[in-house]
Amino acid sequence: MTPVGPGTRIGVLGGGQLGRMLAEAGRPLGFTFRFWDPGSAEAIQGFGDHLRAAWDDDDAFERFVEGVEVVTLEFENVPVELVRRIAARVPVRPGAAALEVAQDRLNEKRRFTELGIRTNAFRSVDSESGLGAALDEIGMPAVLKTRRLGYDGKGQRVLRDAADVEGAFDALGGVPCILEAFVPFDREVSLVAVRTLEGELHPWPLVENRHHEGILVRTDAPADGVSESVRRQAEEGVRALADSLDYVGTLAVEFFQTGDVLLANEMAPRVHNSGHWTQDGATTSQFENHLRAITALPLGPASLARPTVMLNLIGERGDPATLLEYEGSRLHDYGKSPRPGRKVGHVNLVGSTATQARQRAEALLGHLGGGEPIVCT
Amino acid sequence: MTPVGPGTRIGVLGGGQLGRMLAEAGRPLGFTFRFWDPGSAEAIQGFGDHLRAAWDDDDAFERFVEGVEVVTLEFENVPVELVRRIAARVPVRPGAAALEVAQDRLNEKRRFTELGIRTNAFRSVDSESGLGAALDEIGMPAVLKTRRLGYDGKGQRVLRDAADVEGAFDALGGVPCILEAFVPFDREVSLVAVRTLEGELHPWPLVENRHHEGILVRTDAPADGVSESVRRQAEEGVRALADSLDYVGTLAVEFFQTGDVLLANEMAPRVHNSGHWTQDGATTSQFENHLRAITALPLGPASLARPTVMLNLIGERGDPATLLEYEGSRLHDYGKSPRPGRKVGHVNLVGSTATQARQRAEALLGHLGGGEPIVCT
Repeated sequence: MTPVGPGTRIGVLGGGQLGRMLAEAGRPLGFTFRFWDPGSAEAIQGFGDHLRAAWDDDDAFERFVEGVEVVTLEFENVPVELVRRIAARVPVRPGAAALEVAQDRLNEKRRFTELGIRTNAFRSVDSESGLGAALDEIGMPAVLKTRRLGYDGKGQRVLRDAADVEGAFDALGGVPCILEAFVPFDREVSLVAVRTLEGELHPWPLVENRHHEGILVRTDAPADGVSESVRRQAEEGVRALADSLDYVGTLAVEFFQTGDVLLANEMAPRVHNSGHWTQDGATTSQFENHLRAITALPLGPASLARPTVMLNLIGERGDPATLLEYEGSRLHDYGKSPRPGRKVGHVNLVGSTATQARQRAEALLGHLGGGEPIVCT
Repeated sequence: MTPVGPGTRIGVLGGGQLGRMLAEAGRPLGFTFRFWDPGSAEAIQGFGDHLRAAWDDDDAFERFVEGVEVVTLEFENVPVELVRRIAARVPVRPGAAALEVAQDRLNEKRRFTELGIRTNAFRSVDSESGLGAALDEIGMPAVLKTRRLGYDGKGQRVLRDAADVEGAFDALGGVPCILEAFVPFDREVSLVAVRTLEGELHPWPLVENRHHEGILVRTDAPADGVSESVRRQAEEGVRALADSLDYVGTLAVEFFQTGDVLLANEMAPRVHNSGHWTQDGATTSQFENHLRAITALPLGPASLARPTVMLNLIGERGDPATLLEYEGSRLHDYGKSPRPGRKVGHVNLVGSTATQARQRAEALLGHLGGGEPIVCT
């Protein structure tokens, strides 16, 4: 592909906030956007054309591919068959291979293992009795997860004792599952990186993530006290994974860290919530470098510009006058109607030092209520 | 006005690149935009509603003011009467007072003089014979300019000798003019600042500008070697001017610098081309702080984050792969069809030091052709 620039239309599968922020990053580069999303896609209204149609709509398919030069995705649960069909007409980056792995937790874990990326123990579970057998091997506590369609803590159950086990498989819908050993980790970290068409990998610094009820609430960038060994495990793991998928664009891998050891938890074949800090804290954001990678433009440096803490706004937007009162505060609203548990925006708090960024984040959290995860209702 | 936030619609008079970049800065804050522009307004397509109607269209007036919470402008030659009419319904920031001064070079120069802001000698010229009388006082070289509607070097003639004088007044259309002494300046600088509803002024650092055929081609931020006296002249001048207009939002004043003396040249009652570097080089951009000021949100720091050189893309967009090849290069495309002399985008080159930013800018200029103003056709 020759590099493309102003006037190029990019097709995006999905129309959530990740699509919105791709467009925010891409329009200054002269790109325009067409989103395919079966839902109301509030977040991308006014950021490009919205094709509202089911994924299996043939007319929509034609209207989507016509006149777009490259297709990407901001939502990984797009049918792989659709991605293949599009790829026969227009380049799709990342492609079907990445989706096949990322859409299925079992495939994902197997891929990690094949590539020598450490991960927690896991077993495939296809029945109630299979769960019992898997538990005999893995032990408790463990986590039972549906292989497909889980996100933000949905589609999973923690099993601590026999009472939790009973009916757990059926409660998740009787669908194919994976049982994972429960990891008593010290912290969760993630690596966001971008890979070019030529196969160069550019990682942003490793970051630390905090979750609340399965939803990411805070990212500290960079993660504090990252040893050379930890950095290498993360970067080598992501590089091996991305190479194996011939990945193009931004991807993320979440890890559990215990001592100096990382265990890969899951990958996201797209820009990722734990990379939102790059909008204000990195020399080039995950959104812009994703677009530059998929259009064969030279990348910008994926380096830290300023230490940053990202706080998600969940359930409500908060008062912008309060959010913006803190020096170094940068607001990113998603244009979505608030409802409980829904991500409706985030704030990046930048500082000259990591301590300053953290202090600003904690001042804001304190102001909003008790230092607890922000407006999480 | 109580601060407003997500969901607020802002009305903008004009639909050029300044409107586009206001929307780029405002959408992450949750604002939406409605633009009134009689032309095709390519730059803002897809950034909000476009009301395409003449300025005296009564239906358009109603449709424009309905449901917007505050109105601003990105083009200063909007009829002052229209602004007054809107202001009777919705706050307009900045208001009619600023436009009355900025739309008329004679009013502008008189205001500078009244406020004790040094400017070059000037005389009002309303006839061919009046031009002769004014030249007797001012001497040559001098510049004859129409009082109204000049921009990017249009509507003016440099008078160096008798041959230039003959027919000059008629050549500018026989409209009211101003004759200004030609200033043999060392350099041109400008100060961009934002003023809040409470009257606080926050200036960005003074910058140096280079023009080619009357069009800004390059801004170096910060300007090199700014003495305390020069900084004070600029800031005090802009403060006096903004206070006298009860100005709210971002404004710019261009100055000629000779030795340690600044002479005010002209003001812009809006975000300004010489403030585009703030998108990538300042802690908060002129666009975002303008929006925060007019919506009564707390401002972000108007401080330098990284030395930056801004290069305008004039007449053609250039090859994005070349423009983005330089480390620290940030592209801002306006979505406009290229034609000679038209600003279609700009590039900000940031550096860790001013020297590094300049070297990157010069490398890019060299690559594009001989160190000359960028793709100026």
